[in-house]
Amino acid sequence: MSQAGRPRACPEPRIVIGIDPGLASLGYGVVAETGGQIRYIAHGCIKTLAGTPSGERLKAIHEALSSLIQVYKPSCGGVEELYFFRNVTSALPVAEARGIIKLVFAQAGVPLAEFTPNAIKKSVTGSARADKLQVQEMVRILLGLEKIPKPDHAADALAAAICRIHFSGPAGIQES
Amino acid sequence: MSQAGRPRACPEPRIVIGIDPGLASLGYGVVAETGGQIRYIAHGCIKTLAGTPSGERLKAIHEALSSLIQVYKPSCGGVEELYFFRNVTSALPVAEARGIIKLVFAQAGVPLAEFTPNAIKKSVTGSARADKLQVQEMVRILLGLEKIPKPDHAADALAAAICRIHFSGPAGIQES
Repeated sequence: MSQAGRPRACPEPRIVIGIDPGLASLGYGVVAETGGQIRYIAHGCIKTLAGTPSGERLKAIHEALSSLIQVYKPSCGGVEELYFFRNVTSALPVAEARGIIKLVFAQAGVPLAEFTPNAIKKSVTGSARADKLQVQEMVRILLGLEKIPKPDHAADALAAAICRIHFSGPAGIQES
Repeated sequence: MSQAGRPRACPEPRIVIGIDPGLASLGYGVVAETGGQIRYIAHGCIKTLAGTPSGERLKAIHEALSSLIQVYKPSCGGVEELYFFRNVTSALPVAEARGIIKLVFAQAGVPLAEFTPNAIKKSVTGSARADKLQVQEMVRILLGLEKIPKPDHAADALAAAICRIHFSGPAGIQES
């Protein structure tokens, strides 16, 4: 599916977009880094309506994510890897959306790295066993925000972006 | 993931493209139908190289499939539904490719219907328990070909296209 390896270089000043994949709600978070300082830029969700044909939902995701990349011009991206699904049926729509995410980054020529959930937790909090709230609170602190970013998908996306900046080792990462 | 229901109308003369999803090898088959007569047009595979980043492979599929739709101008499409995978890991790359297939059809405004493997077998051979060779032999006969189309992915794609033409009932079909 993807090549294991270190993420390709992400030149400074880095603008990094993190993605939390989903078909109904795809979270994104944009951060910038210069000289080790991380700065918050934006976060949000791309939402698509249940009941709409999935092709139309994927098209909406393709358009919205392509626009975000045009607007923020990220140097690189990070996305959470998919696994630990209860069953294939629940994983497939998210995998289809993740196909679109990978396509958009490839079309824009922006390198995208995949991280395991544990790699993201460890990168953001120092512990792979941190819970969701601990990760979100560290995202808030690292980005100097007053409140935890909402919704959860967007907070997770910001965590993926921070991880993309922090991560310099090969463990738990796949270049997609 | 997709709405259950009857496929949208596919106006005559119908040019139908069938797809057998895959990341390494995506089969396609094009047939035409006028007044109940089915005619073979083309078949083949879109291949991508293992070891290439999956984003690049999905981009190549997006480009090639978009070109095929521009060339053959299908009125509608049929694709085999994914399920019965041994595990999520083996299903995910195919699901990502299927996300791209759905996107291409939605971008082109070409309605795409999903069929279960059993619905395709039954439509082509009359029996949902037909084996692979029986399906391929019926594809050969129905399209008036001298030999069974190769490779298997392309024969399966032609079967999906024939199913899309044959199918007029709601069972086993999902509009994607």
